[in-house]
Amino acid sequence: MKTTTKLSPALFIGDEREGVISFGSGQPDLPPPPEAYRVLPDYRAFKYGLIQGMERLRQALALQYPDSTADSFVVTNGASEALDLVLRTVARKDGPGSKKVLMTRPYYYSYPHMAEFSGMKPVFTDTVEGLIDIDDFETKVADCRAVIINSPSNPTGRVESIATLKRIEEITMDLGTYVLSDEVYKDLIYERENYLIQGPHVVTINSFSKTYAMCGFRVGYLWSLDEELVADVIAMKTHCSMNTNILGQEMALAAIGAPESFIDDQLEIWRQRRDLAYHGLADLGFDLWKPEGAFYVLPKVERPRDFVLDLYERHKVITYLGEWFGAPNRVRLSYALDVDKIEEGLDRIGRYMRER
Amino acid sequence: MKTTTKLSPALFIGDEREGVISFGSGQPDLPPPPEAYRVLPDYRAFKYGLIQGMERLRQALALQYPDSTADSFVVTNGASEALDLVLRTVARKDGPGSKKVLMTRPYYYSYPHMAEFSGMKPVFTDTVEGLIDIDDFETKVADCRAVIINSPSNPTGRVESIATLKRIEEITMDLGTYVLSDEVYKDLIYERENYLIQGPHVVTINSFSKTYAMCGFRVGYLWSLDEELVADVIAMKTHCSMNTNILGQEMALAAIGAPESFIDDQLEIWRQRRDLAYHGLADLGFDLWKPEGAFYVLPKVERPRDFVLDLYERHKVITYLGEWFGAPNRVRLSYALDVDKIEEGLDRIGRYMRER
Repeated sequence: MKTTTKLSPALFIGDEREGVISFGSGQPDLPPPPEAYRVLPDYRAFKYGLIQGMERLRQALALQYPDSTADSFVVTNGASEALDLVLRTVARKDGPGSKKVLMTRPYYYSYPHMAEFSGMKPVFTDTVEGLIDIDDFETKVADCRAVIINSPSNPTGRVESIATLKRIEEITMDLGTYVLSDEVYKDLIYERENYLIQGPHVVTINSFSKTYAMCGFRVGYLWSLDEELVADVIAMKTHCSMNTNILGQEMALAAIGAPESFIDDQLEIWRQRRDLAYHGLADLGFDLWKPEGAFYVLPKVERPRDFVLDLYERHKVITYLGEWFGAPNRVRLSYALDVDKIEEGLDRIGRYMRER
Repeated sequence: MKTTTKLSPALFIGDEREGVISFGSGQPDLPPPPEAYRVLPDYRAFKYGLIQGMERLRQALALQYPDSTADSFVVTNGASEALDLVLRTVARKDGPGSKKVLMTRPYYYSYPHMAEFSGMKPVFTDTVEGLIDIDDFETKVADCRAVIINSPSNPTGRVESIATLKRIEEITMDLGTYVLSDEVYKDLIYERENYLIQGPHVVTINSFSKTYAMCGFRVGYLWSLDEELVADVIAMKTHCSMNTNILGQEMALAAIGAPESFIDDQLEIWRQRRDLAYHGLADLGFDLWKPEGAFYVLPKVERPRDFVLDLYERHKVITYLGEWFGAPNRVRLSYALDVDKIEEGLDRIGRYMRER
């Protein structure tokens, strides 16, 4: 039986064979702005940096967030470490609620693991058409210490309405819940500007990985006006990983200095790909949401394990099981590849669906 | 009262005033081998790397460790993240022993915090003249899940005898205890070659920070023949921080390619400084151990809080309280600065001791 093959992202990693079309990995394929590399030739520093992050980088970030100073930020090993440190820090606090973390389902596949590694229990609010059901959210959040919001969402590609985000602000402020707002796709929204969730216990998590295509350099950060939480996170990072790579931070600062047109131009490329992937799959008869942000589609499919494995083995097309993201009757496709490849991939999927 | 001033390493960080002599921070002051920087000008990669670490770097490391392949290593954000990941992984296992981590006292100041952050309790074996008392060790290790060995030691500068290290191998192998052997100073031993602790549940932790003066780049690694533990660590790193900075790893690989004379030459510089610092302090009447490795001395002093604060405020000399390392009647001096500064610092300490 095909479906007993062990399917996991690890099966696909590093498959760079000629002819493979990968809708798998969630990372930009186009390079960072050239500014990021210009700091390299003359770079000669080598000593420890500040645990909280390079002062000039945090000052540059402070210009992008309201009521902020450099003290409101901690620079981390990607958004992942920011999430991990905040969850571990929050798990050690007395309250509010019990040691539970509320998250939407479908979810980014690391969230439940991270909650569990921090000593907290993941709790799920199932989305309706990929969007938060605020009543279910309100009921479940009452006993949770923290909640993770991820809009735009990986894997759904959906963006929550501003009304929903404002209700979340109100509900969590009343309860004192810690809000981890993972906004790493905030610059990849096709419909409107990003709405920044705010509140006394809000921690915004962001990174240079998606906006500036710097995934491999692992530079992320958190922003919060909760001074006690920021201090606790720095204390933990002091012992557990120390400063974030000093050169990565210098490259990130240089990337911020790229012309604004860089982000706009990228967004146009993503929009073109989004349209191609969305309409292509819709034309093939798939039931899917039109992505409003990020670079993923999450179509429904029957027998998704066969779909993923057959496409891979017979047509050299990589897709990810929705199951890994809490969406068992769907598959995830990242459209982070150029239009020629998206078209070729869609052709192969079409052939496969006809022979199925 | 002077002694009520809040003394912590944070008081000294970033004090780069003209005329300050710092025996504080534990990092090399001389730069990495030039090879490390040669990879920079043409570097253009940007995508995620393997979570376990760059294959070529792990292959190069495998040549340095017995019975190893690239699979025996995980490249981490410095030795700190390696320790953190292993402690967190071990804390989630069923045994052996209870959730306790044995460590020597004096200890590297992060160890007790890291044990606690991982959900385990730090347990201490007090050293005798800075060296492990193997009987006390044997008694206390019986109920511990893991033990941290740090030879050469920060802060004592002492190196355990090979006989002691072999006994530790035997005792822990019988019990099944996880051994975290922090050998980041292994290339800075003045007396003999390093003895590599081995065993089925031994995890050796190392980094490029001390040997190659690459502290700020945060590239460390762990080596272990315990395949299950290595797999568990990779699984955790996948969710909690992903790959280590790809460029830092490329620089680390280039550093390994530096001529062997780099390490030998560094060791001679450290030896000269060691002799100067040790004899200088001994001549001033301090009771201290002669460092056999690393770059720290840990002299006894009366009223250590006054010593640290007075020296700082009146003589602009930074030293660290032994209390931070579990050695309340001592102070720690790092001799990672050039001989002129060591001499000037010793002069000031001499003046202070005479006026005391």
